[in-house]
Amino acid sequence: MKNKYVIGVDLGGTKICGAVASFSGEMISKYTMPTRAEEGEEAVLERIITVIEKAIYESKVDEKEIVSIGIGSPGPLDAKKGKIITTPNLPFKNFNIVKPVKNKFNIPVYLDNDANAAAIGEYIFGAGKGTDNMIFVTVSTGIGGGAILNGKIYRGNTCNALEIGHMTIEKNGPRCNCGNYGCAEALASGTAIAKFAKEAVEKGEKTSLSNFEKITAYEVFKEAEKGDLVAQNILNQALNYLGICISNIITSFDPEMVIIGGGVSKGGSIVFDKVKEVVEQRCFKAMWENTKIVPAVLGTDAGVMGAVALAIMESK
Amino acid sequence: MKNKYVIGVDLGGTKICGAVASFSGEMISKYTMPTRAEEGEEAVLERIITVIEKAIYESKVDEKEIVSIGIGSPGPLDAKKGKIITTPNLPFKNFNIVKPVKNKFNIPVYLDNDANAAAIGEYIFGAGKGTDNMIFVTVSTGIGGGAILNGKIYRGNTCNALEIGHMTIEKNGPRCNCGNYGCAEALASGTAIAKFAKEAVEKGEKTSLSNFEKITAYEVFKEAEKGDLVAQNILNQALNYLGICISNIITSFDPEMVIIGGGVSKGGSIVFDKVKEVVEQRCFKAMWENTKIVPAVLGTDAGVMGAVALAIMESK
Repeated sequence: MKNKYVIGVDLGGTKICGAVASFSGEMISKYTMPTRAEEGEEAVLERIITVIEKAIYESKVDEKEIVSIGIGSPGPLDAKKGKIITTPNLPFKNFNIVKPVKNKFNIPVYLDNDANAAAIGEYIFGAGKGTDNMIFVTVSTGIGGGAILNGKIYRGNTCNALEIGHMTIEKNGPRCNCGNYGCAEALASGTAIAKFAKEAVEKGEKTSLSNFEKITAYEVFKEAEKGDLVAQNILNQALNYLGICISNIITSFDPEMVIIGGGVSKGGSIVFDKVKEVVEQRCFKAMWENTKIVPAVLGTDAGVMGAVALAIMESK
Repeated sequence: MKNKYVIGVDLGGTKICGAVASFSGEMISKYTMPTRAEEGEEAVLERIITVIEKAIYESKVDEKEIVSIGIGSPGPLDAKKGKIITTPNLPFKNFNIVKPVKNKFNIPVYLDNDANAAAIGEYIFGAGKGTDNMIFVTVSTGIGGGAILNGKIYRGNTCNALEIGHMTIEKNGPRCNCGNYGCAEALASGTAIAKFAKEAVEKGEKTSLSNFEKITAYEVFKEAEKGDLVAQNILNQALNYLGICISNIITSFDPEMVIIGGGVSKGGSIVFDKVKEVVEQRCFKAMWENTKIVPAVLGTDAGVMGAVALAIMESK
């Protein structure tokens, strides 16, 4: 593996970030461009290729030493076919993104959704290093996940495994964007926390949250910390649901580790203490005693390092 | 694989059944003895060995052609270490059952819990033949499961994966035997269905269920079929919860197939129609369109054929 490199591309709705990195995870170069999704499929594809070319150029690495490219993209997508099916903030519709990039650079190209890429990133470079079975859960605007089972990413039959934000937690709960009722995402995501706060303010509840023009989950965490009871209750309820979702994941997958990332995980001990409390109540002792629940460690570069890790895992 | 055989042992609380079978699943001989758990660990171990010896003798197969032994047992157990941890109807406590059987017959011996063995049985000989990813769910006294992922049994970190009967479906639901509240098993198992029926009768609800001295899930299905509204409501509620449990499994594992076995699955179309209806409401279309939900096909010999299949899978 000496002197071998891969390229990771984090394809997002606002920017495309590409990096050249070594197999040990050292980032040699990084190049970022705006996505400009409104310009359409071919323009964005061209920009992906440019990002890769620039990252290679800036790395000063011999192109022959670069063995593969990983692309992390929002889903739904078909990792096996290399196709992005459709996704709200990108122009691609049933678009095979792997083929043109592979034709251009003549090395294997791998595509996966961003939650899976982040899971692989934590597995290879982050909190999950050394485990065999781990689940990555991201809690931010939505709730998503990825699983490493027996040392391999587990994608399922239609590449939709670990769509855990759409696990039903409360059968008559609030309607989710997906159309179902009581999904984890509609009860415990950052978006759900902000929505419950807004509803409390609109109902005229006595809360310091009413001082803000726009309430996000961040304000709810801040005001709860300062002692606001309404904010505390909202968080307690949302994190109880998150705990149930994670309990169900543990009961189903029996993993060594659950890694929680995304904006809500930045809430720190208030999040992890509550999740662990619920897991201890609801899972078999043999399971919760043997499942570490820890925060993600890859920070700002989680997206592109996930794509790098995808390229490394698939090249092995 | 020509002329090769394995032995399967189905270790149950009331009887021990052993069979010699070919790799293609042809059962050559079968021998059964009562378990007599009350006689203790060594006595039951001796009886397991006797069952194997008798099955070999009756098969007339050359012992050299038998390559391995699979044992399916109630859990919790440690498949990797070959140990039964503890189980209500067997005398074994932290008992390594693999070692003495291996020493006796000098071929590899594999242990797994009965739900996993049944999953492997359906995968190799039953409804799951030809799939890569499938989940087996058994709904009878309790609810359990097993997963074949990428063509291999998935056991998890502590051999407790797919303890799906203890997925929380209703956070303030009835207390489960495990100590948690609102587990699938407490809401949708045969035991739960019978309990809800008994409660309805005790409350004096107008139902034909009050004609029975002892109500099991069987009576509830029968009376519901005959038009009893109380029985129909009980089933509708329980099967709705079972549907949510299976929806959550599909959302998490994205399998090609969910196979439902156990006594409750014998309810037939009333069970499968309701489960499919709930899954269509609650899962992504891309997932439910691509997940077959079907009844188990191995009947009376499911236990011993599961153990046979375990021996075959592990010998490959």
